[in-house]
Amino acid sequence: MARSDRGRLERGVTVWFTGLPSSGKTTISQGLRHRLSVAGLAVESLDGDVVRAHLTRDLGYSREDRDENVLRVGFVAELLSRHGVVVLCSLVSPYRAARDDVRARHQGRFFEVYVSTPPEVCAQRDVKGLYARARAGQVTGMTGVDDPYEPPLAPELEVPAHLQTLEESVESVWNALHS
Amino acid sequence: MARSDRGRLERGVTVWFTGLPSSGKTTISQGLRHRLSVAGLAVESLDGDVVRAHLTRDLGYSREDRDENVLRVGFVAELLSRHGVVVLCSLVSPYRAARDDVRARHQGRFFEVYVSTPPEVCAQRDVKGLYARARAGQVTGMTGVDDPYEPPLAPELEVPAHLQTLEESVESVWNALHS
Repeated sequence: MARSDRGRLERGVTVWFTGLPSSGKTTISQGLRHRLSVAGLAVESLDGDVVRAHLTRDLGYSREDRDENVLRVGFVAELLSRHGVVVLCSLVSPYRAARDDVRARHQGRFFEVYVSTPPEVCAQRDVKGLYARARAGQVTGMTGVDDPYEPPLAPELEVPAHLQTLEESVESVWNALHS
Repeated sequence: MARSDRGRLERGVTVWFTGLPSSGKTTISQGLRHRLSVAGLAVESLDGDVVRAHLTRDLGYSREDRDENVLRVGFVAELLSRHGVVVLCSLVSPYRAARDDVRARHQGRFFEVYVSTPPEVCAQRDVKGLYARARAGQVTGMTGVDDPYEPPLAPELEVPAHLQTLEESVESVWNALHS
């Protein structure tokens, strides 16, 4: 990888992190954000929780609402990426069709990263305590427990975050974006 | 106005057109968009109808829904303007408090244009046939008929579109943005 080969990043691209809750999506995207900012690139994060506070607070976790959430974030990401921003989206986004809709709207400026940490590791990490609440029956419709997750069939990159350090995961995305 | 004095535009700004239905908001913003594009500036339009198709299709026309619509569009406009885009928002946006919320989030990059065409002229123009439908009792809750419109108290610019040609209206916004 040549350090100067950053045309894709300068033209703008949406980097879409998908994976189970607690798979590492947001942590990796934060590491990547730091690196992109240091490199002087325009970068914006559309994290699931932040977006739900501003753009989609009316939405719940039914399939319909999850898809609408993905489409709204995708709409905003497309606008930003079209203007030269590297947009880091980190959402569970469990349904393939909704992700592919967003991809189609991007006309090539879409880079899907599948963070493939397996369910049992995610459940151990349980960053937000959601898996524990699901086990206790306090949460239903949780992706990876009693709600489906459809992995991408052909993501631009798969990141097996459970087999790597955080630095290695960030590095792999960084390298793939430059290739 | 110096032609080179376009720092505000190059840094990014949200130009927010507010006014009654059929006051001329969208037409003026389209004229301005053309002029900004020709000048080589990054520009994006967030028109009420387009946005409702993608970002806010769940929303109706109650006060609560109108405010939510304004806040979502404002959130997206702020993101884009922060990255150097001139964002042209054209929404009735009838409530002052919601507009001022959006203004506050912009930290200075907000330029409010009040298109002050009076109600009787708007009703004659009736671009979408809404006033006729309201008179026929087929539409209720229409701004300017049976729903309130709160004009800005201190907009960056007032455009009395009914007293000007379209070119004069566009020119006045263009000039004000450069001053």
